[in-house]
Amino acid sequence: MFARKLDRIVSLLSRLPGVGEKTAQRYLLFLVTAEESLSRELGAELARLHDVLRPCVRCGNIAEIDQPGDTPVCAVCRDNKRDGHVLCVVARVHDLLAIERAGTMRGRYFVLGKLLSPLEGVGPEELPIAKLVDRIREDGVTEVIVATPPSVDGEATALLLKRELAPLNVALSRIASGVPHGGDLEFADPITMGRALSGRQRL
Amino acid sequence: MFARKLDRIVSLLSRLPGVGEKTAQRYLLFLVTAEESLSRELGAELARLHDVLRPCVRCGNIAEIDQPGDTPVCAVCRDNKRDGHVLCVVARVHDLLAIERAGTMRGRYFVLGKLLSPLEGVGPEELPIAKLVDRIREDGVTEVIVATPPSVDGEATALLLKRELAPLNVALSRIASGVPHGGDLEFADPITMGRALSGRQRL
Repeated sequence: MFARKLDRIVSLLSRLPGVGEKTAQRYLLFLVTAEESLSRELGAELARLHDVLRPCVRCGNIAEIDQPGDTPVCAVCRDNKRDGHVLCVVARVHDLLAIERAGTMRGRYFVLGKLLSPLEGVGPEELPIAKLVDRIREDGVTEVIVATPPSVDGEATALLLKRELAPLNVALSRIASGVPHGGDLEFADPITMGRALSGRQRL
Repeated sequence: MFARKLDRIVSLLSRLPGVGEKTAQRYLLFLVTAEESLSRELGAELARLHDVLRPCVRCGNIAEIDQPGDTPVCAVCRDNKRDGHVLCVVARVHDLLAIERAGTMRGRYFVLGKLLSPLEGVGPEELPIAKLVDRIREDGVTEVIVATPPSVDGEATALLLKRELAPLNVALSRIASGVPHGGDLEFADPITMGRALSGRQRL
């Protein structure tokens, strides 16, 4: 009905994660019928998003930019109290934030940005392995914690990292997989239960 | 972690329908890590959204604006081939678009914007009944089709409209509710099946 003026904005909104054309249209109809200030302010904020937030050049976490032209370095990489010898490798910034919420990680991070995925055609050459190796060498990292998710792609990526980092002589570990805190054993799936058993620790 | 610069944009994104704080954060992390042009272009499009699209002053449908300052009147209201004596009352623009897709509606529309909802505290005084009555009188409408959804709120609104429009001497009808086209009787819920039976038509 008003295809020409909507097409562009619907296709931009459709690029958000989990948003298809239908949802994008729903957002748009909402914004058109909501008060004008909402879309104006949201638009202005989004347009200047990369002026205030950018991926950290060291680890890929999100970094705040105070002065235009500043090199984006995140709060974790700037934090002098962090142990630079411990490096936690994660798939996405979301995972980094989840680990930070636990509050027990004293090292720094490296965000891969993607996981090895044979099914989706993501091969080892698409992962920033060389950049990770450089980082480990430059910072004198002695322990690498692989915190990719306990999924098929996450495990494949962990195995790839094990192979690629083997020559570097760093302690390599993988986060534990098992029944979550507060979880009921009755409702744990067989794979989780199998991992909880095989990963058992001495009491 | 970077709360100050994110708070405002997360709260704006959270106002989109069906978007909570978690989803808003997900959108934001995606946009920060995606290429800069996406958020810049999306931001610019949203900021000028109300310059090109606004609710139609006559019916509440979305209207394209060709010249700045033009009164927004939608394509349906401008269409001279439409029968101005038939008025279809809908809750939302989405519903109007769904009816237009069927391609059989020859009349015009009136978008209520909301439904009567005792549970959510929306009373009759919040519905634009007076504006609807004016529209019916001015256009000489002779038939009103109530196309609010077959939900509790939609039915309550239909009953309210029946009462409020009774003095106007217009033919009032309600869209049919029943087993949808291609639907399996086996999977129809009891209320839908009851409506399909009570609304049966002579073969």
